[in-house]
Amino acid sequence: MPDCIFCKIVKGEIPSNKLYEDEQVLAFLDIGPLSEGHSLVIPKDHFERFDQCPPDTLAKVIAAANKLAKAVAAATECDGYNVLCNTGRAAGQAVDHVHFHIIPRNQGDGLFDGWPAGEYEPGKAEKVADTIRKNL
Amino acid sequence: MPDCIFCKIVKGEIPSNKLYEDEQVLAFLDIGPLSEGHSLVIPKDHFERFDQCPPDTLAKVIAAANKLAKAVAAATECDGYNVLCNTGRAAGQAVDHVHFHIIPRNQGDGLFDGWPAGEYEPGKAEKVADTIRKNL
Repeated sequence: MPDCIFCKIVKGEIPSNKLYEDEQVLAFLDIGPLSEGHSLVIPKDHFERFDQCPPDTLAKVIAAANKLAKAVAAATECDGYNVLCNTGRAAGQAVDHVHFHIIPRNQGDGLFDGWPAGEYEPGKAEKVADTIRKNL
Repeated sequence: MPDCIFCKIVKGEIPSNKLYEDEQVLAFLDIGPLSEGHSLVIPKDHFERFDQCPPDTLAKVIAAANKLAKAVAAATECDGYNVLCNTGRAAGQAVDHVHFHIIPRNQGDGLFDGWPAGEYEPGKAEKVADTIRKNL
């Protein structure tokens, strides 16, 4: 996609701190890191959303993320990390080229602190599950 | 793992609202949902952390997540969703059996609102990238 910033990074038209590259996947440092070592893993081909990305491509991306997560964790000596793919503006997707964040985390760092777990009313979970299954 | 709650769900020893199942993967509703339709996708085999899960297994899990994300989005009519794998307590991992959350999101829902993007000092990003590459 001509106007896609990640496609431009893939083509080398925009510089990046590359971490990993193979035929189908590129990984590089996020320039606006939530923590030191915050990295992005993307398919080289342009797909806007996670659900538009073919499973074979996702398999390559997640394998690279797997390899990279170990390296990021070792390099940053973090206590943990999030692997996160935001889909849609409402979910925080800022660049419309599917990407997985690897975000090093440390105890008490205050990132994503809210986890306001709710509860289904009786009978509701079964209805929701049924609707999802019907859409599979 | 005898004491793993997700292994018990896989074995049917603990009930769940199953959404999808194949030979290697199970998906079910999160019982403490951040939003309606919040789902979990797990490998049936027990691996504690994302980086301990073999790439072949991750490929199956992410393919199921891909399929399920479409169904969750269609069923809940959400504006977007997060695909999230927390690794380690510091990153919010509450159950030590690798799992991907699919979290439906709606504009202004207030979940994960903070995205405090930082900036590397000059020369720092290159050093961080170099350390990560050396650990690959």
